[in-house]
Amino acid sequence: MINKLVKKIKETNAPIVVGLDPMLNYVPEHIRKKAFDNFGETPEGAAEAIWQYNKGIIDSTYDLIPAVKPQIAMYEQFGVPGLAAFEKTVKYAKEKDLVVIGDVKRGDIGSTSAAYATAHLGKIQIGTKNYSLFDEDFATVNPYLGTDGIKPFIDVCKKENKGLFILVKTSNPSSGEFQDRIIDGRPLYEWVGEQVAEWGAEHMGDSYSYVGAVVGATYPEMGRVLRKVMPKSYILVPGYGAQGGTAEGLRPYFNEDGLGAIVNSSRGIICAYQQEKYAGFGAEGYAEASRQAVIDMIQDITSIF
Amino acid sequence: MINKLVKKIKETNAPIVVGLDPMLNYVPEHIRKKAFDNFGETPEGAAEAIWQYNKGIIDSTYDLIPAVKPQIAMYEQFGVPGLAAFEKTVKYAKEKDLVVIGDVKRGDIGSTSAAYATAHLGKIQIGTKNYSLFDEDFATVNPYLGTDGIKPFIDVCKKENKGLFILVKTSNPSSGEFQDRIIDGRPLYEWVGEQVAEWGAEHMGDSYSYVGAVVGATYPEMGRVLRKVMPKSYILVPGYGAQGGTAEGLRPYFNEDGLGAIVNSSRGIICAYQQEKYAGFGAEGYAEASRQAVIDMIQDITSIF
Repeated sequence: MINKLVKKIKETNAPIVVGLDPMLNYVPEHIRKKAFDNFGETPEGAAEAIWQYNKGIIDSTYDLIPAVKPQIAMYEQFGVPGLAAFEKTVKYAKEKDLVVIGDVKRGDIGSTSAAYATAHLGKIQIGTKNYSLFDEDFATVNPYLGTDGIKPFIDVCKKENKGLFILVKTSNPSSGEFQDRIIDGRPLYEWVGEQVAEWGAEHMGDSYSYVGAVVGATYPEMGRVLRKVMPKSYILVPGYGAQGGTAEGLRPYFNEDGLGAIVNSSRGIICAYQQEKYAGFGAEGYAEASRQAVIDMIQDITSIF
Repeated sequence: MINKLVKKIKETNAPIVVGLDPMLNYVPEHIRKKAFDNFGETPEGAAEAIWQYNKGIIDSTYDLIPAVKPQIAMYEQFGVPGLAAFEKTVKYAKEKDLVVIGDVKRGDIGSTSAAYATAHLGKIQIGTKNYSLFDEDFATVNPYLGTDGIKPFIDVCKKENKGLFILVKTSNPSSGEFQDRIIDGRPLYEWVGEQVAEWGAEHMGDSYSYVGAVVGATYPEMGRVLRKVMPKSYILVPGYGAQGGTAEGLRPYFNEDGLGAIVNSSRGIICAYQQEKYAGFGAEGYAEASRQAVIDMIQDITSIF
């Protein structure tokens, strides 16, 4: 799957991923209204609204981008119907040949991590049958519990040809509270990064590992160090745009080959129509606004090479 | 909700929580068969089997215990129908007046943590209506992202009178890889514990905070230190029994008042009928075996006072 991601990034010349993180107030009025008319102001209605909204964005951007990253929390907040919309979104994106990164930030130990890995990347056996359920291509994982928490994910990835992005240095202001603390002369995130490189060596693709890392765009100096600590790990970079990361700041996350990083934008793309710059598209044209925002983002980011 | 938990622990004289972590091979054959007969060997069939299994255990133990802790990963592995079984289990346990600790180990930043908090502890607004969906009483949360990741949970807890257990020192063998690393002379878990105490001071119940901590039973010396670092935080203690924690080792997790800790057992209770000790109950008597295992666990743990 890392090979497919690299191939698609090369083909599209777009080291970006669109974050499908729908809030109800992002969804244009006409879509919301139709969903509520059909299902009422219910979790089912909300789930239908975000699914239709996602579908519009996928349809108008899939030829330009390698991947999407649905953030499961935004679906989980609508309960069981919301999670059905997550499943539908993953399935539809894969039908459009997009790589799907499930931003689930799961992490536990032993059999529990194995159950999460099964849920999101693997197959579950029920009686004599096997099912792939949420079935993303990659999942994000939290490293706080150490190797016991990560190995069950890697085992499933090996079997299913799937991958991970492990949180190393997150993009938020308080990420430093624990992640930046100094241990034997080096910050915790470097130790985690080193461990990611080690875990990743166990499951290599052609040029990069199936085990990548999350490093926020808001900390380019740390990105520079982490790039060297984990040379074979793809870096998923959140925090561009809305959170303040700039294209110029992204250079250190990439390797000399122009590969090695994939930059996420969520609100900047999916809510483009709510920005002044794209207001001309109107709410009815929200999907076209997203397409234009993707084109602009690709241009912005590739300008650094 | 922390007040209710403390009250129920006093009433039952049982500082324990039953972990509802169903695997399909834990479910007695007769329940599995009936579920598959009705729904096929499908995720719906599996979800029905684990729900019926849970119901039996709740029905036969609810008068003895203050709380249950469903581990969402075990439901998530059965996809959307599995999560519907999780929702049903939470609802049913609450109908039996049990406190429900959702072992979800979520954690993200800003609006994403807020969405998780809404999903598990809060209310979601859909049009003019509000819904409580998964609606646990407590949720477990991962601290790796720092205050930005925790505050949105605390905000929802304040509004809804609910609580958290934040991972401090987990029970697994490799938990030390990052959690035990020394920072300015003290291990990371102590710094996290200190932060938990600080977060907890913001949202106090009568005698304990709404913000508790997870500290594994497998590390009693660390439990002793953390008890002092977070005197007002309830400690949720996994790792008793199957993972090797002993009753004697649990003493340091409690305060002088005999309160301050709640000990989880999952397999030891819900799979009791598969143990030699309780084999006499047979698979048909799995729920009674669980009841006896609860009685034995309470006796074992209260013997330390």
